[in-house]
Amino acid sequence: MAADKPLARQLGIRILSVHHPYQDRFMALRRDDLVWPDGTTGSYAVVELNPVVIVVPVTTDGQVVLIRQYRYTVDDWVWEVPAGGSHDFEGDDLTDLVRRELREEIGGEAKEVTHLGVYHPAVGKLNVDVHLYLATGVTLGETRPESGEMIEVHTVSVERALTMARDGTMSSSTSAYALLRCEPQLRGLSTEH
Amino acid sequence: MAADKPLARQLGIRILSVHHPYQDRFMALRRDDLVWPDGTTGSYAVVELNPVVIVVPVTTDGQVVLIRQYRYTVDDWVWEVPAGGSHDFEGDDLTDLVRRELREEIGGEAKEVTHLGVYHPAVGKLNVDVHLYLATGVTLGETRPESGEMIEVHTVSVERALTMARDGTMSSSTSAYALLRCEPQLRGLSTEH
Repeated sequence: MAADKPLARQLGIRILSVHHPYQDRFMALRRDDLVWPDGTTGSYAVVELNPVVIVVPVTTDGQVVLIRQYRYTVDDWVWEVPAGGSHDFEGDDLTDLVRRELREEIGGEAKEVTHLGVYHPAVGKLNVDVHLYLATGVTLGETRPESGEMIEVHTVSVERALTMARDGTMSSSTSAYALLRCEPQLRGLSTEH
Repeated sequence: MAADKPLARQLGIRILSVHHPYQDRFMALRRDDLVWPDGTTGSYAVVELNPVVIVVPVTTDGQVVLIRQYRYTVDDWVWEVPAGGSHDFEGDDLTDLVRRELREEIGGEAKEVTHLGVYHPAVGKLNVDVHLYLATGVTLGETRPESGEMIEVHTVSVERALTMARDGTMSSSTSAYALLRCEPQLRGLSTEH
């Protein structure tokens, strides 16, 4: 039936049917009826998203740019680093999306943008690749938030950013993890100044 | 209309309507039609989950217990630490859920379970509190996976676990972040041996 999920089929999971009970321009909800390898039946709902980019921006003078953003999901202000989905991105090169998000969310222009890896947040529910980037030589200008975005821009020292990632001040684990993944690079950039 | 999202209302977001296009025993999808403070209309789909516990287990001899789990969402084997949702949990004390997940996923019994914080993965899409715990003095026995769970149990040194969290081997950022948040405690436990 479904030509996808090759590893599932290899492991003996039988996909009986695939439904899409909900879809909008940001996400698709997919719900599969399954027979697990032990013969029990079940279903699995997966939220599918286009790839996301997340970027740790470092200014020309070695400061990290953080945002404090109102998030309707949790009805709270959340410390994060800039990020964005590729649902409305037409290009081939995700670094162009990184540069667009930097312009929109922090009014930033980066000298260099480097891809550092891919990870999955909330792997029990979401099918999404988060591509991590480090942006260096960033200069800040006017932000251009999208409708519904409420964002403050803050620059902090590398040490302060890493502390906020580690002590829970930054409650978004996707952002906090991005900072901690970049720690060696951030410490390198910070001692250059 | 909706009595929730108090900060949204304080910020001038008007909630026009709330729909629940999908619900199962693990998640509810909520879609709200909104007027943002700038007067533009829009909608926001949020996946709502009951609180989740995630736990970094350390054995009596100072090793970290990791799992390698097949995840249907991304159709891949993913390195993680034990975690579980409270959708079918009746108790008041989430540490009981932590102990249940330890028994199910790694056959583990812990001497001590300590709450270290709360974070949000994928804060652009999910409304969920992930409660982080450290479990120490863990002994391992027989696992009792739920239907559909395919899990290998591995014990590794603290150093190795932190490296896997940092270098991308552990592609689940919720798990990798859990390990990095526990780094000071893990290093303390590791030098005791």
